[in-house]
Amino acid sequence: MTALLLVAHGSRRAASNNEVRHLTDKLREAASDRFEQIECAFLELAEPLIPDGITCCINQGADEVVVLPYFLSAGRHVSEDIPGIIAETQARYPNTTIRIAPYLGESSDIVNTLLDLAIK
Amino acid sequence: MTALLLVAHGSRRAASNNEVRHLTDKLREAASDRFEQIECAFLELAEPLIPDGITCCINQGADEVVVLPYFLSAGRHVSEDIPGIIAETQARYPNTTIRIAPYLGESSDIVNTLLDLAIK
Repeated sequence: MTALLLVAHGSRRAASNNEVRHLTDKLREAASDRFEQIECAFLELAEPLIPDGITCCINQGADEVVVLPYFLSAGRHVSEDIPGIIAETQARYPNTTIRIAPYLGESSDIVNTLLDLAIK
Repeated sequence: MTALLLVAHGSRRAASNNEVRHLTDKLREAASDRFEQIECAFLELAEPLIPDGITCCINQGADEVVVLPYFLSAGRHVSEDIPGIIAETQARYPNTTIRIAPYLGESSDIVNTLLDLAIK
């Protein structure tokens, strides 16, 4: 059973965290056939934090968790903080495969998405 | 003549700012038929800042500038800071139309982009 965990930075502003939760709802609507579970978690400032999000997926039966960084640039959070947290969490759950997908900003789709927004 | 100005937050990390500049190059390759000029600017921490980016577009002949916020959530930067800077800059250039496009996180395309990244 594979879970998708969307990981955002987290904000002091509740509305920003709720945007991530709303996006997670939309991912569920679009991809419930591809992932048995779709959840979100936050690097800091909001809950659940990443390890708790992974634990939640595992408790619900996931044996594979795809962590998807909702970040635009490969800064410290994407290149160091998230991999570090995942490595620690992976050590706690040796029977679960935890994989980090490419971060959002790395997608070549972004160019067309931006142009669509600009032209609207 | 219409210019597209991609506006990112800006980072102390040069590589993150260069990711934005590289994305701007890709926008140019993809949309030089739709925008005579495509530039980037930063809210803070990197150059050019937004007013300087707009001035650059106008000096190169733009009479319309589309400002595209490269942000994932409608936090204070998107809802207050960028509109405030644009209003001040617009007042300096009454003969130029400056329009703020929807921010990236508002695009409905993001769902499919994320799923493509998760499945790869």
